[in-house]
Amino acid sequence: MKTKITGTGSYIPANIEKNENFHNHEFLNSDGSTINAPSEVIVRKFKAITGIDERRYAKSHLNTSDIASFAAEKAIENAKIDREDLDYIIVAHNYGDVRHDSQQSDTVPSLASRVKHLLRIKNPKCVGYDLLFGCPGWLEGVIQANAFISSGIAKKCLVIGAETLSRVIDPFDRDSMIYSDGAGAVIIEATDGESGIIAHETATYALDEAHFIYFGETNNPEIKDNRRYIKMYGRKIYEFALTNVPVAMKSCLDKSGFNISDVKKVLIHQANEKMDEAIVKRFYELHDMKMPDGIMPMSIGKLGNSSVATIPTLYNMILNGEIEHQDINKGDVIIFASVGAGMNINAIVYKQ
Amino acid sequence: MKTKITGTGSYIPANIEKNENFHNHEFLNSDGSTINAPSEVIVRKFKAITGIDERRYAKSHLNTSDIASFAAEKAIENAKIDREDLDYIIVAHNYGDVRHDSQQSDTVPSLASRVKHLLRIKNPKCVGYDLLFGCPGWLEGVIQANAFISSGIAKKCLVIGAETLSRVIDPFDRDSMIYSDGAGAVIIEATDGESGIIAHETATYALDEAHFIYFGETNNPEIKDNRRYIKMYGRKIYEFALTNVPVAMKSCLDKSGFNISDVKKVLIHQANEKMDEAIVKRFYELHDMKMPDGIMPMSIGKLGNSSVATIPTLYNMILNGEIEHQDINKGDVIIFASVGAGMNINAIVYKQ
Repeated sequence: MKTKITGTGSYIPANIEKNENFHNHEFLNSDGSTINAPSEVIVRKFKAITGIDERRYAKSHLNTSDIASFAAEKAIENAKIDREDLDYIIVAHNYGDVRHDSQQSDTVPSLASRVKHLLRIKNPKCVGYDLLFGCPGWLEGVIQANAFISSGIAKKCLVIGAETLSRVIDPFDRDSMIYSDGAGAVIIEATDGESGIIAHETATYALDEAHFIYFGETNNPEIKDNRRYIKMYGRKIYEFALTNVPVAMKSCLDKSGFNISDVKKVLIHQANEKMDEAIVKRFYELHDMKMPDGIMPMSIGKLGNSSVATIPTLYNMILNGEIEHQDINKGDVIIFASVGAGMNINAIVYKQ
Repeated sequence: MKTKITGTGSYIPANIEKNENFHNHEFLNSDGSTINAPSEVIVRKFKAITGIDERRYAKSHLNTSDIASFAAEKAIENAKIDREDLDYIIVAHNYGDVRHDSQQSDTVPSLASRVKHLLRIKNPKCVGYDLLFGCPGWLEGVIQANAFISSGIAKKCLVIGAETLSRVIDPFDRDSMIYSDGAGAVIIEATDGESGIIAHETATYALDEAHFIYFGETNNPEIKDNRRYIKMYGRKIYEFALTNVPVAMKSCLDKSGFNISDVKKVLIHQANEKMDEAIVKRFYELHDMKMPDGIMPMSIGKLGNSSVATIPTLYNMILNGEIEHQDINKGDVIIFASVGAGMNINAIVYKQ
């Protein structure tokens, strides 16, 4: 028996925020000091490192649970299942529902309960819970669903990654340009075939790394409230990811029994283009290989980093032929991999 | 193979808030209207319904993740395990870390990562994640740990329920007197013996019930900010719980193969004394029995409702002989049961 993704869906918010929209921002260093460059130059350098041209922000009347339900509707339709047959709804996110006019995270009831409500699912045996695991949350939800299916307590699960990072960003911080909103969902089912999850790997590094991504104050020292925003130590994360993610991916591939040459695609969390490339290059170096052209489909240029939503959204777009020169076909071996707050790392080797 | 609780620990915050401390509160109805009774009378009626005399608030320098780590330290010590052998750290909570001077929930990194950091655990294979599932979150964490152990991906798990509800209460709302802070933790391991988890049951009712417990504005119409607080429709919850919790408990007992007469204790989420008694009475009525004296140990009088923390704390206190006239002995069949935001219900039949 295998656990297989039988349907995918995503929701890409309508509001496009282009890099030019940040030209009138006053960016400051984290110590509050002025950056000796005009905003245009800061934005150009940002684009060169991250690959991000534009990102998406959810309309102000929508919250994370709303866009999660939109992605879920599509995944249910795509999988052609009866929604009442779902055993689990797992929603990975990080900040709950943050209304556009609020600084508070609303997590009660869980977003899974809100999604279940919005999907009009009646069956009380369909259990909804939220999973907080940093950006790798969606992939970890898939791993948990796989465990429930393997242990016999579930047959069909809905796993969603949804986030509205636009609601927790400090406009005085250059890193605010990275973050985006989005939602991706999959239906996971027990199947008898050969395709599905072959191997998985998860790690949490919290001894020195727990607070590499954190909730911190604005870079603007003139603002004296105690409101906090998503913050990160970019350099530390880069070094951490480059050291640990390729090793985790290799460990997962080793467990799967497949060879590196079997791998057709690597779908990596869209964190930062240069970092993602460096990770995948090093993963191939660990196998004494050059990274093959086109192995790593990317969506970050147009969609930014929407945390838990990047991988399911990217996967859905490839299957729908929406990423140029990229496709995934039956029998293809692919690797999903993610890294983020925690610091958490995970990977799945998957046979399409 | 069974999944067994091999260690328990809890942390009871030091600050005692007695009912008298609320005598100078101005309580208002949810529509902002005045309650036609002096506060002393309101507090006395409150005590008659909920059974609560006093509750505990965490000291202002401590957050949910801190008290979670204190309970976890004790559980690890009690189980006599090497903390580096843990496969999972599952932290159930609802509001993240809410600093005493803040209205924001801090959930990045996850509280599990913070706990792992505070416990100084190095092993990256020890995976930490947060579970949001309303008050039944801790019990659901135990059910998830059991699934991981059954599916072969874990051998030892730390499951914590921790909450600082004192940070999200509206002082103008009578219900604010219900809420308390606390943390409870258990170590769960795969064992070969006969004792451990025999059966479990979970349900999520979200069609009409999703927003019975929610995040809402203060009862004081003169306060014009948009800050929100924990709020509930008490009457609806009471009716819902009375209808659905006894049935879920019965379904779980039926699955377990044990008879109602085998049950030695029912450890129910300490939500409200009258409601808890009504639930357990109805559970026995479903089996044409009168509720046996002493079947239902209670801690709510002195500890209030600390959400996810009530059951593991109560269990730990009974095992330590800290609840008068109550004990649990080897071989005893006990039922854990909970109900809360979602609306979620769960139950476990457990052999000590």
